Amino acid sequence: MTEVSTPESTDITGRTVSVLGGTGDQGRGLARRFALAGHTVYLGSRSAERADGAARALVEAESSPVDVRGLDNAAAAAAGDIVIVAVPWEGHRELLESLAGPLAGKIVVDCVNPLGFDKRGPFALDVPEGSAAEQAAAVLPESTVTAAFHHVSAVVLLDPAVESVDLDVLVLGEDRDATDTVRALAERIPGVRGVFGGRLRNAHQVEALTANLIAVNRRYKTHAGIRVTGL
Amino acid sequence: MTEVSTPESTDITGRTVSVLGGTGDQGRGLARRFALAGHTVYLGSRSAERADGAARALVEAESSPVDVRGLDNAAAAAAGDIVIVAVPWEGHRELLESLAGPLAGKIVVDCVNPLGFDKRGPFALDVPEGSAAEQAAAVLPESTVTAAFHHVSAVVLLDPAVESVDLDVLVLGEDRDATDTVRALAERIPGVRGVFGGRLRNAHQVEALTANLIAVNRRYKTHAGIRVTGL
Repeated sequence: MTEVSTPESTDITGRTVSVLGGTGDQGRGLARRFALAGHTVYLGSRSAERADGAARALVEAESSPVDVRGLDNAAAAAAGDIVIVAVPWEGHRELLESLAGPLAGKIVVDCVNPLGFDKRGPFALDVPEGSAAEQAAAVLPESTVTAAFHHVSAVVLLDPAVESVDLDVLVLGEDRDATDTVRALAERIPGVRGVFGGRLRNAHQVEALTANLIAVNRRYKTHAGIRVTGL
Repeated sequence: MTEVSTPESTDITGRTVSVLGGTGDQGRGLARRFALAGHTVYLGSRSAERADGAARALVEAESSPVDVRGLDNAAAAAAGDIVIVAVPWEGHRELLESLAGPLAGKIVVDCVNPLGFDKRGPFALDVPEGSAAEQAAAVLPESTVTAAFHHVSAVVLLDPAVESVDLDVLVLGEDRDATDTVRALAERIPGVRGVFGGRLRNAHQVEALTANLIAVNRRYKTHAGIRVTGL
């Protein structure tokens, strides 16, 4: 496997990262990895108190010092240089609409998978805008919206025994600087490559593929991810 | 990377394989690999003469003897134990409707990617049934429809310099025996693992992900595929 080099110019050292919906498993998992990589991370939640509790728990779980702070979602949106959206699909649109002001001018990274579950397992939900990422782009016209981190297992991110995470993160978006920045952020997770994965209009299938990976998990009792071959 | 073992019981030795749309690049590429693995392969085309020409060309290109024969699509549908659908999306429904009789009782493997292209690149087309595979299942109620081989590059399949193909084939379907059979078929291509990828209702995103892989190909000048990690 060769390296997919992110541009040397994409130095994200010192950039702060906010995670909206940061008290969920996915949000905490990403926050943990970015904090371990040296970033100041703001966990956002509807309740600043809950966010603070989750942030303290993350800090206390590590043997080395990490900087994770809890805020309400609006304060977290305002605080971070790069803002990850890891909220449940239910309420996604409403939350982002309410944060359009603080998110203006920022790189927003949507990692939401609009999925349903029934007795036959997971399936992709129909999204009027095409995908969660396109919905984010529609309600955040002043932000630079990208999509990434859809397939990263929260269990793996949170597992202290997993030092290197064996998957690639597909990063989608219209803006080259923004997708390069998010690729560099993905590569802060040891083992991960950030791979450009196309325009936002092709985000639906990346989000929906999570349903297939859940089917793989169930069949093979694993935490599946994907690697892009040929790179 | 550990092996995903297909069941020992899934022995497909001696099974014949038909490829509808077998004169296209993808069809010829798959036919070549299955013929090299020892299967008799029937190439189907609208014109038996064109199919015969493509079959002869495949046989003549190999230094070892391979058994590839050209037929019209209806005769190919009747001849193969396993029938791969590699036709263009345009005309997919009509062709399969016309072949419902000869395809009854067989395992059908749909590998069609309904994609559009414009100046911004590739994108997934809207399919009324959800996906090409679900459309096949709808018009072939007497067949056992699976979906697979969406991401395999025809260039790679046809390249005599590529001995081992570095990707996994996601196999989707409702019937365990059928998906195990198609997984075993995928593994006839050296280097490939056949991985169960979920139910047919989750086929759309696997088909559509081809648009993202094309975006990867353009950005990184490669022939991208995917591997499932965690197996």
